[in-house]
Amino acid sequence: MGDDSSAATGLQSIRCRAAVCRKPGEPLVIEEILVAPPMAREVRIRIICTSLCHSDLTFWKMKDPPGFFPRILGHEAIGVVESVGKDVNEVKEGDTIIPTFMADCGECKDCMSNKSNLCANFPFSVSPGMPRCGTSRFTDLNGEVIHHLLFVSSFTEYTVVDIVNVTKVDPAVPPNRACLLSCGVTTGVGAAWRTANVEKGSTVAIFGLGSIGLAVAEGARLCGASRIIGIDVNPDKFVTAKTFGVTEFVNSRSLGDKSVSQVIIEMTDGGADYCFECVGMASLVQEAFTCCRQGWGKTIVLGVDKPGSVLNFSSYDVLHRGKTVMGSLFGGTKPKSDIPTLLKWYTDKKLDLDKFVTHEVGFEDINEAFNLLIEGKSLRCVIWMNN
Amino acid sequence: MGDDSSAATGLQSIRCRAAVCRKPGEPLVIEEILVAPPMAREVRIRIICTSLCHSDLTFWKMKDPPGFFPRILGHEAIGVVESVGKDVNEVKEGDTIIPTFMADCGECKDCMSNKSNLCANFPFSVSPGMPRCGTSRFTDLNGEVIHHLLFVSSFTEYTVVDIVNVTKVDPAVPPNRACLLSCGVTTGVGAAWRTANVEKGSTVAIFGLGSIGLAVAEGARLCGASRIIGIDVNPDKFVTAKTFGVTEFVNSRSLGDKSVSQVIIEMTDGGADYCFECVGMASLVQEAFTCCRQGWGKTIVLGVDKPGSVLNFSSYDVLHRGKTVMGSLFGGTKPKSDIPTLLKWYTDKKLDLDKFVTHEVGFEDINEAFNLLIEGKSLRCVIWMNN
Repeated sequence: MGDDSSAATGLQSIRCRAAVCRKPGEPLVIEEILVAPPMAREVRIRIICTSLCHSDLTFWKMKDPPGFFPRILGHEAIGVVESVGKDVNEVKEGDTIIPTFMADCGECKDCMSNKSNLCANFPFSVSPGMPRCGTSRFTDLNGEVIHHLLFVSSFTEYTVVDIVNVTKVDPAVPPNRACLLSCGVTTGVGAAWRTANVEKGSTVAIFGLGSIGLAVAEGARLCGASRIIGIDVNPDKFVTAKTFGVTEFVNSRSLGDKSVSQVIIEMTDGGADYCFECVGMASLVQEAFTCCRQGWGKTIVLGVDKPGSVLNFSSYDVLHRGKTVMGSLFGGTKPKSDIPTLLKWYTDKKLDLDKFVTHEVGFEDINEAFNLLIEGKSLRCVIWMNN
Repeated sequence: MGDDSSAATGLQSIRCRAAVCRKPGEPLVIEEILVAPPMAREVRIRIICTSLCHSDLTFWKMKDPPGFFPRILGHEAIGVVESVGKDVNEVKEGDTIIPTFMADCGECKDCMSNKSNLCANFPFSVSPGMPRCGTSRFTDLNGEVIHHLLFVSSFTEYTVVDIVNVTKVDPAVPPNRACLLSCGVTTGVGAAWRTANVEKGSTVAIFGLGSIGLAVAEGARLCGASRIIGIDVNPDKFVTAKTFGVTEFVNSRSLGDKSVSQVIIEMTDGGADYCFECVGMASLVQEAFTCCRQGWGKTIVLGVDKPGSVLNFSSYDVLHRGKTVMGSLFGGTKPKSDIPTLLKWYTDKKLDLDKFVTHEVGFEDINEAFNLLIEGKSLRCVIWMNN
């Protein structure tokens, strides 16, 4: 494993356990792998715990690129810095960090601006390698390369992450709560807080009451929304949703002749101030847009539809109804500044992370976490590495 | 012409000259008509001067509804209150007013909010009658009803307008400048100022350098934009555009293999901060959206495409590129509060209205104003009533 960087730091590869996805849709296999030392501007991390996000399922099932196999999935986690490569000053061995798929280089126009969270130097990508060079830090014991996922790959005892994808956090926060801010909760809460900037007293409609939709509800509640309407095909979700601040429910499968937008427009006397699409269906984005109040309604798109999908809006509605459409990636948040803020809100008991964690399993039971999510039984299942 | 309202006020119909559009696309005919007294909450106005806007051409040519004939076109004007109906306290006889197609009732949720200019009580409509009752105040000397346009109908010596469509203005401002704020200039300047809220130092791209596009340039200049890029198929427009603050030009017909968006993205190192579509082509809206900078780019739709036209956006671009799409009707301005502000900016020499007026004709030459606009020779041709 010797290369210039590792030679410079004197670091060696680590042999450890990882849950490897060998083939799309098949159970992960826990096996021993080698994790190379961090190269320049990289850190090697011992994962404390990780949680399963819906996007992991998407990449787990994805047969064609950007699906790559064998691969180490997982991108929502917390860990401790084991070692650092050259030119890493921001963190040191022993620091607690949260890795994120979103980069925050701190130097590009976007990172320097308070209007964007889309790092221009390290753009969002589903590349199977590291962000600077595209290569992998993982090999199996036969020497075969194992691919990365979203610059994180947390279903392993050790991983390597670029410094732009690492946020240092307070080690006092319980890791099985803090890890949620690595992706899903930040995405949902941020969409209400940063992207939409939900105003106090406003009315919010949320399409899809999975964990992202519930995180939007939590964010809308934090922002002081007075009505939070949840829309889902599954009324069983309404009970849980109430505990996240959802005040009213619409079962989109039992509306008779009416469309969702007709119902929401009636309920709200003209439309919701903010509509969040958290399912990932282009047609639902249009329904959400219709639900938005004229004059100031905003439709925020969080759900990822299949590649190439197109959003259609009536030109008349855009021009004559004063409605806005916007996307929200990672909730519009900047990892290095906003994750610490959200963690502080948790310790201050403003933001409730506890209720998102419905299950916890040991690393050896990681496939059980997949089953729980597939069956719709879990919001977040935390997987403890116990290493 | 006696009815309850006129009986109450003792007012009679006025016989005066109007330029009537008898058939779609045919020259207007100046003839004598009768203008009924204002009913409750209406005012009768003596038009001082009016100017020709592109939307007048659209309705002039429109064979099917909302095209109606005979009709009195014109919706950009200034005049003096001749008489008022019952329950009108806001203006009195002799007041100088600007009529607007946009209503401002001051009482609905939208008018009370600082986020919307889309009056909910009197929504935008291309109805051929008055806003409250749908009937006409115009008849020809044979007793045939003549239809209204956009609640204004200014190509006549006298018209009747609802109080919600009337803004009282300072009579000291030259009427052949003030009348421009009745529609076009307010729409363009407002789109930059109110809808987009263009930031100082930002880069703006304007698709279409007709009078609306040039008014956007004027608004962007007022807001302190440092680069204003004009895009048009006609390079002759670039000379005029410079005087409106446009700093760079792109001739979209001579780009070789490149698309407009490729050129704009190269010129701006990533895209413009604000893109304004002022032509009214759905495909151009998509091109403008592509030109917008990731992270914070806003696409503002001003142009009206044909009814039923659809705007398509890649779901990926909306979600992953942090771009926003918004419409701008009447530039996002509220007539009764924003027109007086714009007029003050004119008298303070901040806003330049003079350069928009390229031609002036007497009422009897109104068809010449149509020819000038059709041939692309005029920005605004002011038509003096000389009454």
